[in-house]
This record gives sequence, C-alpha cells and structure tokens, in this order.
Amino acid sequence: MAEQNANALAQIADLLGPRLTTALADRESHSRDEAYTPPVLPDAVAYPETTDEVSAILKICHAQGCPVTAFGVGTSLEGHVVPTHGGVSLDMTRMNRVLAVHPQDLDAVVQPGLTRRDLNEELRDTGLMFTVDPGANATIGGMAATRASGTNSVRYGTIRENVLALEVVLADGTILRTGSRARKSAAGYDLTHLFIGSEGTLGIITELTVRLHGQPEKISAATCAFESISGAVESVISAIQMGLPMARIELVDEVQVRAINRYNADFDLPEKPYLFLEFHGSPDGVAEQVENFRAIAEDQGASAFQWAEKTEDRNRLWAARHAAYYAVKTLRAGAVGVVTDCCVPISALAACIARAKALIAASDLIAPIVGHVGDGNFHLQILVDPDSAQEVQRAKTLAGQLNQLALDHAGTVTGEHGVGTGKLDYMQAEHGAAYQVMRDMKRCLDPKGILNPGKLVGSL
Amino acid sequence: MAEQNANALAQIADLLGPRLTTALADRESHSRDEAYTPPVLPDAVAYPETTDEVSAILKICHAQGCPVTAFGVGTSLEGHVVPTHGGVSLDMTRMNRVLAVHPQDLDAVVQPGLTRRDLNEELRDTGLMFTVDPGANATIGGMAATRASGTNSVRYGTIRENVLALEVVLADGTILRTGSRARKSAAGYDLTHLFIGSEGTLGIITELTVRLHGQPEKISAATCAFESISGAVESVISAIQMGLPMARIELVDEVQVRAINRYNADFDLPEKPYLFLEFHGSPDGVAEQVENFRAIAEDQGASAFQWAEKTEDRNRLWAARHAAYYAVKTLRAGAVGVVTDCCVPISALAACIARAKALIAASDLIAPIVGHVGDGNFHLQILVDPDSAQEVQRAKTLAGQLNQLALDHAGTVTGEHGVGTGKLDYMQAEHGAAYQVMRDMKRCLDPKGILNPGKLVGSL
Repeated sequence: MAEQNANALAQIADLLGPRLTTALADRESHSRDEAYTPPVLPDAVAYPETTDEVSAILKICHAQGCPVTAFGVGTSLEGHVVPTHGGVSLDMTRMNRVLAVHPQDLDAVVQPGLTRRDLNEELRDTGLMFTVDPGANATIGGMAATRASGTNSVRYGTIRENVLALEVVLADGTILRTGSRARKSAAGYDLTHLFIGSEGTLGIITELTVRLHGQPEKISAATCAFESISGAVESVISAIQMGLPMARIELVDEVQVRAINRYNADFDLPEKPYLFLEFHGSPDGVAEQVENFRAIAEDQGASAFQWAEKTEDRNRLWAARHAAYYAVKTLRAGAVGVVTDCCVPISALAACIARAKALIAASDLIAPIVGHVGDGNFHLQILVDPDSAQEVQRAKTLAGQLNQLALDHAGTVTGEHGVGTGKLDYMQAEHGAAYQVMRDMKRCLDPKGILNPGKLVGSL
Repeated sequence: MAEQNANALAQIADLLGPRLTTALADRESHSRDEAYTPPVLPDAVAYPETTDEVSAILKICHAQGCPVTAFGVGTSLEGHVVPTHGGVSLDMTRMNRVLAVHPQDLDAVVQPGLTRRDLNEELRDTGLMFTVDPGANATIGGMAATRASGTNSVRYGTIRENVLALEVVLADGTILRTGSRARKSAAGYDLTHLFIGSEGTLGIITELTVRLHGQPEKISAATCAFESISGAVESVISAIQMGLPMARIELVDEVQVRAINRYNADFDLPEKPYLFLEFHGSPDGVAEQVENFRAIAEDQGASAFQWAEKTEDRNRLWAARHAAYYAVKTLRAGAVGVVTDCCVPISALAACIARAKALIAASDLIAPIVGHVGDGNFHLQILVDPDSAQEVQRAKTLAGQLNQLALDHAGTVTGEHGVGTGKLDYMQAEHGAAYQVMRDMKRCLDPKGILNPGKLVGSL
C-alpha cells in the first residue's frame, strides 16, 4: 500500500472505528461491478453514516493524496466503481434514508445509498412514484452519478430530469448545496447537472432532491411482433410524432426473443422483432392510446398483439423483459455477457441496428439486441467464453465498432451505461475540444485528482 | 475608451469592415434591455455572421483583454446584456438561420440569433412546434443563455429541457460542441447545461440543437375565477397530483385582472384571482382534462368558467394574458414597471403570494402579481414614478423582500428572468459555498474575465 494511503487509512480509522475495514471479503465485494472488467482491490472500505463523516474522510484523503471511489450496490455496467488506483472505496449504503416526502410538491429528499425500490416501497401509500428504472435495483446516488435512465424515460425522463437539487462533498471536504426545491431556476450556473453523470470524479453526492410522479390511474401493457426492426422503429416514430404519451417502448430482436422463450417456460413467442409497450393514464386515455398505437403498428405490419390489463399479466411481461440479461445466457452454456450500449437519433436507429447485426454476424458471436427505442438507445449483450482471450478481444472489437457507428450517426457512445473504464477510450472522439474543457473542470474541482482517479477524463 | 479596447476594435474592424460600428445609434440600442437598469454604452457593436468570425473576435478580445457582451434582441429583464464594463456588444442577430429540421427526431438545429416566432413560422407546415415561450419574441440563443421558460413549461419544460446540444465559442476563441442529437447520453460531464443559464459569462453560444414537439390535435383554453389565491393554487396542486397534463396554468391576481379589464375594451372580468388554462391533446383527451379540471376547481370554489375552443377566442384570452405587462401601466399614468420574479415549491406558493401582498400593501406601491403557478413561479410588476428616486428605492426594497421570501421557502430568487445586474446581490445568499465553485468555473473557462464581466459571479 502506498504510504499516503496508509496515512489516510490510519486517520479514517480514528474517525470511523470498525466502519473502516481492510477485511478481504469487504475489499473483494468492492473490487468490481457487474461489468466484465478486471477487479481491483481497494486498500480499505469506509462506511460513512453522515455528510460530515464524508467531508472529514475527504479532507483526510485530500491532505494525504489518497484515492476515493464511491460505491453504491455495484450494479454499474462499465467498471465505474472499480478502484483502479486503490485507496478507499466509499460505501454509501449506510446513508439510505428518506429524509422527507413532499406530496404537494411531488418531490422527496433522500440519501444517496437508498435504492430505487426501497424509495418506491416507502412511497407506496402516497399515490406517488419515483420513475427512473434502469432494471437493476441501483442506489439513487449511483444512478445520479452515472446519469442512469431505463425503460420509462421516454415518458418520465432520465435521472437528469428527475433531480432538482443535490448536496455534494467536494474533494477537499467542502459541503455544497446545488439547486433548490423550486421546479426551475434561472439563478446561476447549473452545478446540479454538472455533478449528475460525473461518475464520482468531481464530488461525492450525499443528498438528493428527486422528482416524483403520480401513480397512473390505469396501466396497460402490450406486446406485438414485426416482420422487421424498421417496422417496429417506424411505428414508434409515428407514435411519438402524434404525441402518444407511451410510458415504455422496448424493442427486443428475434435473438433476444429466442432467449426469452427458452428462459421463461410460459413464453412461446414467434421469433421476430418485438415491441413491449406500456401505457399510463386515465382508463379512457389509456384505451385511446392503445387503439391509436395499434392502428399505427398494423400499418407497419405488426401482428400477434397481446394486451395485458391485469397486474399479474403485466408483471409477467415485464419480468420477461427485465430478465433479458439472464435469459441471454441460455443461448450459450458457460458464456458470460459483455454488455454495451449506445444512443442515436431515432431516425438513424433502424439503420444502426441493421448495421450492428451485420457486424455481429461478421464477428461470429451471439449478441442479442434490446433497445429503449423511444430514446434511440440500444444495447448489445455479447456472449463470450470468459476463458478465451481471443473471443473477449473480438467482443471488444465489436463494441468498439458499435461506438463508432453511434458517433457516425450524430449519437453518443453510451446512452445510459456511462463511461467507467469501458468507454474511456472513446471520450476524445465523442467530445473533441470539449474533452479538454472536461479535464479543466476536473482539475478545477479536484486538483489533486483523488476522486475516482483515472475515470471519465482519464489520468490528468 | 481603454487602450486595450481601442486595440481590439481596430483589429475587429479589419475583420468585419462595416459590421463593426461605433455609431451612437447602434451603441445606444445595445446599452440596455427591457429592465429598469441604467444603460451603459458599449465602445462598439459587432455583427458577426459565422462561428469562425465569433471565434476570431474572441481571440482578439482575449489577447487584448477587451470585454465582450453578447446581445440578441434585448428582451431580457434584469440587465443581462448591459455592457457594464464597456467593450464590444456582440450582436448575434445576423446568425439567425434554421440550419436543419429533423421531423423524425423532433429536433431542429438553429443559429442563436433566430427568434422563437421565426422558428415556429418555419415549422408551421411540419406539424411541429418549438414550445419555450417567455412572452417576448426572444432569440433562442438568448433564451438558452438566460435559462428562459414561460407559460407552457409546466407541460413541455423550460429551455433547459429543450436543448440537446450546443456549439459554443470560449473566451479564447476555442470552438466546442457539447451534447449530440441523441436524446440522452451518459458520456461525460454535462457541459450543455453548464452553458445554459450562464448569461454569456462562460462562452458565446453559436448554434443550438433544440427539441420540437408535435402540434396538438386539439387545444382548449379556459378562464375561471376564485375567491382566494389559495383556492386557485390548491386546484392546480390537485390537478398536477392526478397527472392532468395541463399545457398552461397561469395565475393572475385581482389587481392584474383590473388592469386587464382596463386595457382590453372587450374584457369585464370580476376582480378576483383568476386562472388562465390551456389543455392540449386529442379531442377526447382534452374533453376529459377539461371535465376533470372543472370538477377539481369547483371543489375549491371556482366560478365564472369561460371555455374557448375556437382559435380566435383562445387568441383573445392569451393576448390579454400576454399583454399583462402593458395592461399594468393603465393602473397609474406615467409609471414604469420594475419587474421581478421568484420561484418556490408549489406547496409554499399561496403563503408566499399572501406574504408578498402584505409586503406590497406595506410598501404603498401598486404591484400586480402573475404566476406560472404549475412551476411555483410568480412575478411582481411594481409601478414606480421613474423620476422619484425614493419610489424606485422602495420598489427595490420590495423586490429584495420578495427574494428573501423565496429563499426562506426553499426556493430561488429567480425562476426565469435570470440574474443580470438585478439579482447579483442575492447570489451568495442563494448558493452559499456553491457560489465559490461558480467563480472557480468562471476563472477556469474565462481566466481574463472578458465575457460579460461583472455579471453572474460578479467581479473576480
């Protein structure tokens, strides 16, 4: 262990007692996330319980030059939380309280270690809901730090649109508040959005004021098949243009459908591209949306409509969609999934997916595609034999081709998974001159480079 | 004129020829905005036509240390564009083209000097619309720079939610692109939102990719009276909680209603607090929204409902609301309006307006209140005799009390008008430790302090 880290740990141990640990089990569980990224052990794991403790820890680490990498529940997908430079893994899960719910204002004040499901559990009797849903039961702090979104952002927005205010601790221990509980403000630089998506490299989020939405009176879900992906995408474009307020519009390709059929005993869908949809509103409003969508989709050759009005039927559909990641593993025994995502303007989506499928075929790998098609965001889950360095390399090459495809179509190399270690090499290509400004921001806010070093802007 | 400014002007004249002018008429028209702020003449006005020209101008000014203040059409309300330190007023109105419209993606790429009405004129036959509407026919660059919003942001968002990407020229002439045409991204720091609302102090916006929305199939407008402001606010809170997608919900107090009646020969509304509403959607959807809102409002004692389905009736209603600023002047001959706004959580809105009315009464000034009540944002237009320094001072004191009121209720000193010169003194109180971070950002991006100096973060 580097001397500065040892010095920092000794001081943090004085502060936290047994809540600073160097036990191997803790270090191992904080060495990786869900990405296929080599794990790196932190020197220790700290479990702060208050903002003041986070501030005190950062003051020590800043003085000593010891790296600090925040950790939620480790569900990120690009190696964000891997402490590549060692130091302290700052586990935020003991700061997991709901501090206030304001039903009239449709907001809640929460701590960063709270998971989205726990928040919704607390909200259940209020008629309100927190909508950002990346699939995994992530912490809300982690979702903000990685600019997460998910299946219903087409209707309710990503985490970017659902955070009103933050409390943040800077690298030197300074405690800031950004934004307010007012819905909008024209007062000063938008620091809230600077920290959202900064992946723990500019500050540690210690409190969030998030937007809530009313639980819809009526929810209806549906699936339908298409002869081609472009038919599915064109349907969604038409529906968005006419202002249909779809709550979820998920595309799964025929390879993913095969996996769903294999994984779920009660599924036997035709192996074609599918849309999974959900509509929220009043009973009459939902009925109208459903009819309008059906008309649009049938114009594009959709078939095999299945409507799910009852809660258990809806849950069955969405359970199948949410289990896509696990279902894919049925396609090849012993394989692991290398997951990647990108996002393009929706007009380019069908062409990009067609090109992606050609690249997958050329790679000789299995890689089902799912997409949040309303956002132009799609994911590949590339199955590889983890013991074959050559296959892993082919998967990385394929992911790289996908990134370039997105950049060639006015898009971004990641719509929602973030940069972590996996997308770092594409930042210069995506941002050009703006990447230098990001480095300047990092140097300005974290001059010693102790916060999640090596990530997002690379090594300064 | 300062020597560095004279040197810069000589070089810019070589670049722009007659498009750099020191004519008094141009300097005067660029010395102020619509705020009640003392005008300051720039040394010259430059009319760039390309991003490269903006970059070249900034390189010169950066080298010489000459101030540069961007100018659109001068409709800002807090003195944002007043070149308080002299130098160059950078008039962006020759960069006013629509560069591309992407109907499938619901976006357009525009230059900053384009006004919102001109954009909507170009979009008319596409079935699409640009929704941000601050009342004045502002430039889109100016709206982004001041984080503008307006009457329909409750449904469609402020400019913050409606800009996907920017091209920006930094103080040293570097040309950046932030964001992309993808709907969302998790790749890197959110520089787009850092420049939105930066009031020309961090960079000059030279291109914007803005979101468009489908024109609604059906629009219905309404007005109704309430016995109290809290009845109006409670109705809106209930409607939002049940998810009614109101497109506009404007509150006008009884003093403003009197002004509307005087200004518009065909208006004779009871002098009570009023809501002006608009609903967008399908014919059935709008009918359902209208019925639902009416039931909610009648529970709160609403009366005198008037529905306007026909375009001419709707236009008449909204013309009366949009002319509120001019109507107010009928309340006192020869007076000018000192305009101010603030924004609070909607649960605090009725209490804040009641307190504001008590403060107005104590000030012995006339000051009607209008509000974008769905956002918790309300405006005072304080009528003063411009020749009475004592009255102007009383108006400023009143505005200051209003700002403190907003801060005391977890709000912001400006929901949409911005900081300019008028709100500068409240920034430290609103932001606390975060204000120092804003100064650090400014120093990082504009180390010589040439961009709109003295504004937003004050003098460094």
